[in-house]
Amino acid sequence: MIVEPQCARFDSIALECGTTLYPVEVAYETYGHLNSDRSNAILITHAFTGDAHAAGISRAAGAENNGKPGWWDNMIGPGKAFDTDRYFVICSNVLGGCQGTTGPGSINIVTGHPYGLTFPVITIRDMVRVQKMLIDSLGIPRLLCVCGGSMGGMQALEWAVSFPEFVRCVIPIATTWRHSAQQIAFNEVGRQAIMADPDWCDGDYYDKKPPARGLSVARMVGHITYMSDESMREKFGRKLREKEKFGFDFGIDFEVESYLRYRGNQFVSRFDANSYLYITKAEDYFDLTNGSGRLTDAFRTVDTRFLVISFTSDWLYPSYQSQEIVKVLRRLNGDVAYCDLQSNYGHDAFLVDIAEQSEIVRGFLESTARLARAA
Amino acid sequence: MIVEPQCARFDSIALECGTTLYPVEVAYETYGHLNSDRSNAILITHAFTGDAHAAGISRAAGAENNGKPGWWDNMIGPGKAFDTDRYFVICSNVLGGCQGTTGPGSINIVTGHPYGLTFPVITIRDMVRVQKMLIDSLGIPRLLCVCGGSMGGMQALEWAVSFPEFVRCVIPIATTWRHSAQQIAFNEVGRQAIMADPDWCDGDYYDKKPPARGLSVARMVGHITYMSDESMREKFGRKLREKEKFGFDFGIDFEVESYLRYRGNQFVSRFDANSYLYITKAEDYFDLTNGSGRLTDAFRTVDTRFLVISFTSDWLYPSYQSQEIVKVLRRLNGDVAYCDLQSNYGHDAFLVDIAEQSEIVRGFLESTARLARAA
Repeated sequence: MIVEPQCARFDSIALECGTTLYPVEVAYETYGHLNSDRSNAILITHAFTGDAHAAGISRAAGAENNGKPGWWDNMIGPGKAFDTDRYFVICSNVLGGCQGTTGPGSINIVTGHPYGLTFPVITIRDMVRVQKMLIDSLGIPRLLCVCGGSMGGMQALEWAVSFPEFVRCVIPIATTWRHSAQQIAFNEVGRQAIMADPDWCDGDYYDKKPPARGLSVARMVGHITYMSDESMREKFGRKLREKEKFGFDFGIDFEVESYLRYRGNQFVSRFDANSYLYITKAEDYFDLTNGSGRLTDAFRTVDTRFLVISFTSDWLYPSYQSQEIVKVLRRLNGDVAYCDLQSNYGHDAFLVDIAEQSEIVRGFLESTARLARAA
Repeated sequence: MIVEPQCARFDSIALECGTTLYPVEVAYETYGHLNSDRSNAILITHAFTGDAHAAGISRAAGAENNGKPGWWDNMIGPGKAFDTDRYFVICSNVLGGCQGTTGPGSINIVTGHPYGLTFPVITIRDMVRVQKMLIDSLGIPRLLCVCGGSMGGMQALEWAVSFPEFVRCVIPIATTWRHSAQQIAFNEVGRQAIMADPDWCDGDYYDKKPPARGLSVARMVGHITYMSDESMREKFGRKLREKEKFGFDFGIDFEVESYLRYRGNQFVSRFDANSYLYITKAEDYFDLTNGSGRLTDAFRTVDTRFLVISFTSDWLYPSYQSQEIVKVLRRLNGDVAYCDLQSNYGHDAFLVDIAEQSEIVRGFLESTARLARAA
């Protein structure tokens, strides 16, 4: 499946913080075809460091994603969970990102320079409102589904609450209805690592070298939280890296050290440090109840179908957080299915341990499409 | 209880890495009195960033600990778990530390300058062998007990294996018999944060400013791992810090951010970044089985009594790691008691949630002393 990056451009968007941002460009990709009654569209919302390239092989000449399969290519395609023979699947890069959608690294048309820290602080709701503009521009009156994992799940939840009449079902995976103290804490460490790097220069580094060391440390912390104790033990254990005994120095001794350093360095080449700051802040601000804590109120007017998925070994977005969502929806007599899938892969499970997830998503989409046809 | 810092000096020690270090100074404190048959001595081994000041109020003029209660003052003192009316309690700063015992910040007598990275990489076993030299120098033929939590627990385990005939019982708390991939990973992130700080200067910063930003980030990561998801939720939740709505900037929004930044900055004033590197490396190298994975072999000649304690919400040193120790000791028909104490405080529990721990330790020490008298 060869795909082509696309871009939409909107005049402006009024943001939650009170600022109006203009213009807004949105990078996106689509897979499959919109049917004649425009009822088979599915929006995939990506996680923190994801992008619009969710599936297929990109043919953007010279682009970074060139030749690389999408980040959820195991879930999206002909015959897969998001079956592109049946559904029209859309994925766009989030507002504040650095993979084609307007973000802190974009040129501010007023100054002619990259925004840097003059970019407004955005929220998950702002991201979703930009997605809604994109969906409107594509002439889609109602989405069959919005689905995403992690921060993608927050967007799916926000869609259900902000635009319940525009989405038949949502599938929030490995996510939460509000960021917890521990989740904020890990994000704050990443931000502090970046801002502690002298190369960060208060975010004004675009014509200089980026804060690579700080961003790399931030990513290393992230990777630990994406795996489980068990998956790290299975993958690395105490295996040494290209040596048979300890080096008794501060070079690399263990495989796990090598892996983290590699992942950290690799990340620097594909991600913008300021986007790291902005997107983590959007996650931390995320609270479906706007601070009231009353999830019942947030969901009261929602009649969207829900499939909530969590994973047993995910300690970054633990299952109990999904279960809180499910309990409230059940109490409201909502249409909600829930699966706590057994996996050792931790938070990464929604990306890698997809056999059961695929079957469950497939069935849920089919039943939703059937209900839609019957309506 | 007013205590005075003490210091012992030894000519040299041959280290596991093959280097001989000389001389070695050891900072220590004692509480209570050695009885006439020298049978009531207990060694307390401290955790990663602990020091020799375990209990009482230090009266060292001008010293940093002046007026401050010891880090385990709730466990050590007259009538407490480690009852100083009955026991003679000793605590020393570990080799590689920065609170009085020889470490990377000490002056190398050959060069007249601080060691920095020329300090040899040390191990938990090296730390324990220095403690043994101290205990010998105090004229104590056999310890009643060695007890510590976290890295202190590793030292207690190492005492049981290295010097079984010199210790009647050990109490390893909230610890492991070998550092896991996840534990190594968190330590590696801390090290990378320090080494990414340009002020680190390859460890040669003692006449300049220290790598404060890197060390602070390292400490922030540590603090997250010491608490539990639940204790963070209870202590901070999503409470904002001195504001009623989000700042929409990268200042402090949440209490938890303020706490972490404060803890990070505070740590810099009391801890040496190079000691951070050396001590975490010693933890990561720690494996009671020397890489064989056969704990049964490691414990085969051990006839020390064990009281193993873990805490239900400790995810940094999870209970299953203590249970592995207990299972092997039971299989060897060893004298082992085990308690998995219910607590929400995470890894910090051994320092703060001490009611049950106190009772269990008190009873175990009494029965060990009784057995010793009967022997």
